[in-house]
Amino acid sequence: MASHKLCMIPGPIEFHEDVLQAMATPATSHVAPNFIPVLGESIELLRQILFTSGQPFIIAGSGTLGWDMTASNLVEAGEDVLVCNSGYFGDRFGECLETYGAKVTHLRVPIGEAPKLDDVAAALKTKKFKAITITHVDTSTGVLADIKGIANVVRKESPETLVVVDGVCSVGSEEIRMDAWGIDVVITASQKALGAPPGLCVMGVSERAIGVFKNRKTPVPNYYANWNRWLPIMNAYEARKPSYFATPAVQNIFALNVSLKQIVAQGIEKRFAVHKEASAKAKKFIHDLGLKLVPTSLEHAANGMSAVYYPEGVAATDLLPKLAAHGIVAAGGLHVEIAPKYFRIGHMGISVTEPERGHLDATLNALKASLAECGYKGAL
Amino acid sequence: MASHKLCMIPGPIEFHEDVLQAMATPATSHVAPNFIPVLGESIELLRQILFTSGQPFIIAGSGTLGWDMTASNLVEAGEDVLVCNSGYFGDRFGECLETYGAKVTHLRVPIGEAPKLDDVAAALKTKKFKAITITHVDTSTGVLADIKGIANVVRKESPETLVVVDGVCSVGSEEIRMDAWGIDVVITASQKALGAPPGLCVMGVSERAIGVFKNRKTPVPNYYANWNRWLPIMNAYEARKPSYFATPAVQNIFALNVSLKQIVAQGIEKRFAVHKEASAKAKKFIHDLGLKLVPTSLEHAANGMSAVYYPEGVAATDLLPKLAAHGIVAAGGLHVEIAPKYFRIGHMGISVTEPERGHLDATLNALKASLAECGYKGAL
Repeated sequence: MASHKLCMIPGPIEFHEDVLQAMATPATSHVAPNFIPVLGESIELLRQILFTSGQPFIIAGSGTLGWDMTASNLVEAGEDVLVCNSGYFGDRFGECLETYGAKVTHLRVPIGEAPKLDDVAAALKTKKFKAITITHVDTSTGVLADIKGIANVVRKESPETLVVVDGVCSVGSEEIRMDAWGIDVVITASQKALGAPPGLCVMGVSERAIGVFKNRKTPVPNYYANWNRWLPIMNAYEARKPSYFATPAVQNIFALNVSLKQIVAQGIEKRFAVHKEASAKAKKFIHDLGLKLVPTSLEHAANGMSAVYYPEGVAATDLLPKLAAHGIVAAGGLHVEIAPKYFRIGHMGISVTEPERGHLDATLNALKASLAECGYKGAL
Repeated sequence: MASHKLCMIPGPIEFHEDVLQAMATPATSHVAPNFIPVLGESIELLRQILFTSGQPFIIAGSGTLGWDMTASNLVEAGEDVLVCNSGYFGDRFGECLETYGAKVTHLRVPIGEAPKLDDVAAALKTKKFKAITITHVDTSTGVLADIKGIANVVRKESPETLVVVDGVCSVGSEEIRMDAWGIDVVITASQKALGAPPGLCVMGVSERAIGVFKNRKTPVPNYYANWNRWLPIMNAYEARKPSYFATPAVQNIFALNVSLKQIVAQGIEKRFAVHKEASAKAKKFIHDLGLKLVPTSLEHAANGMSAVYYPEGVAATDLLPKLAAHGIVAAGGLHVEIAPKYFRIGHMGISVTEPERGHLDATLNALKASLAECGYKGAL
């Protein structure tokens, strides 16, 4: 792999050499006998990773396209949707839903807090919601939502409401069990803890949600995102047969396939555990430096990333370039209200599952050194 | 590059080694100082390649997404659109337009024919069309439409009508001069004659069409495809500043950038010429074998691909596997009415601009040998 600064942001993350090599697969027809099983198998592997018997989708696009697919296929104009809003991504998902005529109710939480189960239960009593959306890990705050608990509340209070999880920053690093927990949609993308380069929208949709989709009363108000186009494609490739609606991103799918196989081979349970351990280590290091996390409690802090307030006297323009000089790329703030006040580091994928690479240690040591260079006394 | 069968279909095409190496660029933040100028420069290069002062877009997705962008941003519900329909892709683009409420009139031509200027002129007199769409090269038939002539007819008959070119299978292999010819939209994708792997929707939109978009009366009925989201992103990257709506396909854009730089360095005029020469050579070889093209005249046959009827007694199941055994991947038929009766070969990109690679000769020789193996007397 070419020498480069370590990409320790909350996605894109560092890629395994074999994943990158697959990105450079020579020209291959999208209906070639050596490509069809690669997409077919990737669909099967996603079922294992998401713990679902439902329908995975792998489509050229970004995670944002997954919102579009959810909003335009599952929600009809005039229907109510409850958005558990913990930051930037809740606002955006709400806008996406409103584009297709959904009536959106935001259940907003203060910055750094996670949605509370009692508040969700109370909101669900106010009207009949077609769907509830939850940002599993809000990349803008590093907050981890309790999707298992929320899905349980939905089952009790409003069992027909579809449970939609924005798992862009959680699939592959946080525990998700779609079928057992009663989750209907998981939206993600290739470039976070699934460990492949950006360019693919990845989804899992429960059998129940596919049924709701098939029984919708109005036509799907979208062409590219329309599951009526994509279901036959996914089914064909899974049956190892060619089919065509739009040319798949062949090389990206070769790369995703390598990463999905690595994830399953390593063991999904073990993957959850090592992400927890690495996160605990990172958060202890950050705490010992005297820094404060954006999440108000470790109980609802993501395991795949950390959002951290700058200590007094240190600014983004100070710290991030110093980290870069140490070979570490970190991210600035994203939540509009506090953007200049905090930074974010990712600790997902090979950077934690293969600790012998030293990515996390290098990042934490660079953080300490950079803070010291900024004159922060807690790091001296 | 790993040894592989030559991908001689009408896209994806063979990639240059440097393009593939760029696909394997290590993890890079989408807002990193070494990525921002790569996307910014790619936007500028597209302006040169499309001969336009308009707005290029480079977005994670496929060419099909380009239809979605055109239909949902430029056409409002109830508006009329004239679709010059020469095959499969006209049907599909029509469906896409109807999804957003357009009233579509198909100007259909017999299989193998190109739209006639007189017919276009007559159709334009029947009502006021918001847009006319033309499949520049219909990948399903190998027919090349006279977009310069049609744009000229539009300017005379209905100057306000937007001229939309589906250039998925033509940009980079056929002459297109957006501004000089009065073309408002060119839709393409990364994996055809632009010479990069699939995964990117690529567009050029005239300043006039951007103006029409900005003056639309109704909200854009799409989220992911909405140019209100993408214009600020394209403008930011071109100004070498970071911005965020959806994570760009970083590696695919590195690869596209390499290919676009090669195209411009080689000279765009020369590129048109070498594609014409290679096509003439391929078509003469096919003619000398006694085979018949799907296009009814060389006057309207594409320069980047050839669609060829099987000779009597030879079927897809005979020829394509024999070609594959000779190391050549060709494509079967796609036009529903004649699909089992013809095959398609691509001759675009490095396979013709770098003839020293021997791709086209290998393909034509394999075609002759395979036909002989099928017992076709014209090849003996």
